[in-house]
Amino acid sequence: MTALNFDKMDGLIPAIIQDDKSGEVLMVGFMNQEAWETTLESSRATFFSRSRQSLWTKGETSGNIQEVKEILIDCDDDTVVLKVEQIGGAACHTGHRSCFHKKVVNGSTRIIGEPVFDPRKVYGK
Amino acid sequence: MTALNFDKMDGLIPAIIQDDKSGEVLMVGFMNQEAWETTLESSRATFFSRSRQSLWTKGETSGNIQEVKEILIDCDDDTVVLKVEQIGGAACHTGHRSCFHKKVVNGSTRIIGEPVFDPRKVYGK
Repeated sequence: MTALNFDKMDGLIPAIIQDDKSGEVLMVGFMNQEAWETTLESSRATFFSRSRQSLWTKGETSGNIQEVKEILIDCDDDTVVLKVEQIGGAACHTGHRSCFHKKVVNGSTRIIGEPVFDPRKVYGK
Repeated sequence: MTALNFDKMDGLIPAIIQDDKSGEVLMVGFMNQEAWETTLESSRATFFSRSRQSLWTKGETSGNIQEVKEILIDCDDDTVVLKVEQIGGAACHTGHRSCFHKKVVNGSTRIIGEPVFDPRKVYGK
């Protein structure tokens, strides 16, 4: 098991999720040791939810799981990049392909791109 | 000034630095409100160092500044992606192009890529 440094952020590290094909950054989540091990073992991106204080595998509700294709670790072992295949075509709970769908333009924010799915249908909300 | 949510991580947000041309993730830093404002005003990626507890502009020692070309904000306003032109060709203090130069292969870690510069010459160490 590849060892990471979870000490800097109270047991958590940031995990950058990047589309394996396009290189687009899809989302950022946080992992604790258990989420990291689960991700390695299952090849599905798994995080620790700070708000719910529990493990969650991306896509467990929506079906939009992230199949891990490549894992990169940074120079001081406290951040990872996961290159994934995003099932369902969208990572964001809003239905947008990427969570990073707001762009700063001349000091204000503009939504870029259109939702790939309707979150009311996917999440039943 | 575009407002971000700095509340979730004691006044800090993660900032993902991505090469504007290749899409490669070069590094991840943290920003407080002041670092964010300085980045917007100067168009040079500026972070808050957790170890030194002070602002630092990437490249202030090495000259390898990051000229910000595009800024993306995520769905809940607590993480940013900066697309940058990496002056000097390398973001990592090791001389590697990206801080993410370790790849997980069959459960162990392999260094990928060669250093672009000699850190002993750039940092005088």
